[in-house]
Amino acid sequence: MRIVVPYTGRDPKSRLAPVLSGPERRAFARAMLGDVVETVSAAGHTPELLVPEPIGAVEADVDLGDVPTTVDDRALTPAVDAVLDRVGEGVPELGVVMADLPLATPTALDRLSAAGGDVAVAPGRGGGTNAVIVRDPAFSVDYHGASYRDHREAAAAAGLSVSVVDSMRLATDVDEPEDLAEVLLHGDGRAREWLVDAGIELDTSGGRVGVRRESGERPE
Amino acid sequence: MRIVVPYTGRDPKSRLAPVLSGPERRAFARAMLGDVVETVSAAGHTPELLVPEPIGAVEADVDLGDVPTTVDDRALTPAVDAVLDRVGEGVPELGVVMADLPLATPTALDRLSAAGGDVAVAPGRGGGTNAVIVRDPAFSVDYHGASYRDHREAAAAAGLSVSVVDSMRLATDVDEPEDLAEVLLHGDGRAREWLVDAGIELDTSGGRVGVRRESGERPE
Repeated sequence: MRIVVPYTGRDPKSRLAPVLSGPERRAFARAMLGDVVETVSAAGHTPELLVPEPIGAVEADVDLGDVPTTVDDRALTPAVDAVLDRVGEGVPELGVVMADLPLATPTALDRLSAAGGDVAVAPGRGGGTNAVIVRDPAFSVDYHGASYRDHREAAAAAGLSVSVVDSMRLATDVDEPEDLAEVLLHGDGRAREWLVDAGIELDTSGGRVGVRRESGERPE
Repeated sequence: MRIVVPYTGRDPKSRLAPVLSGPERRAFARAMLGDVVETVSAAGHTPELLVPEPIGAVEADVDLGDVPTTVDDRALTPAVDAVLDRVGEGVPELGVVMADLPLATPTALDRLSAAGGDVAVAPGRGGGTNAVIVRDPAFSVDYHGASYRDHREAAAAAGLSVSVVDSMRLATDVDEPEDLAEVLLHGDGRAREWLVDAGIELDTSGGRVGVRRESGERPE
């Protein structure tokens, strides 16, 4: 199926600012996007980028040039809803997978696509909706707040069935510095490699494993 | 199979102190333990408590009186290792599941027990080992630090095969205040009910959904 991957290069991953500089966050976000696009393809689906403006020059190791792209400068929710308008005759299902899921694997996406229901959801940590497959045109998204809960309620109100996939890999969107530890622990793609090259390493000195910079400082 | 659930009532869940008082943390930890024991039983396994000292009077709604209990006052790692010494002739496999996994379901445990390998692991957020099934006496545990990584390395060094279960429900151990949001969002047992009764509710005002107290303040 077609799987849409929303992405923005406008100040991406701002909550990683305590450990990564602005240019670093952009490069890291692009590496994660590359991982997601590759995973979607490896799972046998067709990735499509959804961006607010044409994306610029691409790092050499993340070739997105051949990926179909839709440009929509609206906010995430209306832009995704416009894409979901395609669902119906001729398009029985469509997926939306976030660009910050570097731990996603083809196996995890297989479990999502094998899940039944008018809507299949992979919840994200903190109540987000990290991946969704929509099979009924009556469903629309709202990514604000606890969207996982809201999406379930909206589907129920519309009489739609919902299946939920229990996946740590799909639940792990990378927003906060502590999330980088998950990438170091469980990743095996560009995002993990990028972090290692940047000198980000596991910090096991606290209660739950975090990260620190090898150099001790974030570059300006 | 026999599934051992380590638990201590000695200052449990200290990192929840910003939102829960000491007596509250004990009651909440006991509610989570009740959920885990019930889930283990519902999955068709036999739960066994592993405690440093006999556990005291049990809240009326969590009847643990009939659960076999091993008392071992050593630290978690040597106490679990002593239990794992049983693996071998007559005991082909043994599970160890942490007591702070209120989102665990029989289905998630089924996936863990169905996973092959000399060792089957469910990693926890932040590099922990939330659940493990051991089928070879050569394996021993070390819960310090990034135990998931260390357990994989130790198994590889011993020539043991390892399978990993990708489960958000088993990955979600509850240690930090933000973890409470996961219980409110995805739980359906005693732990969630306890939080609701205590006035803990979702806080969707920040970037990632957290929790706040209805009353605004933690009781002393």
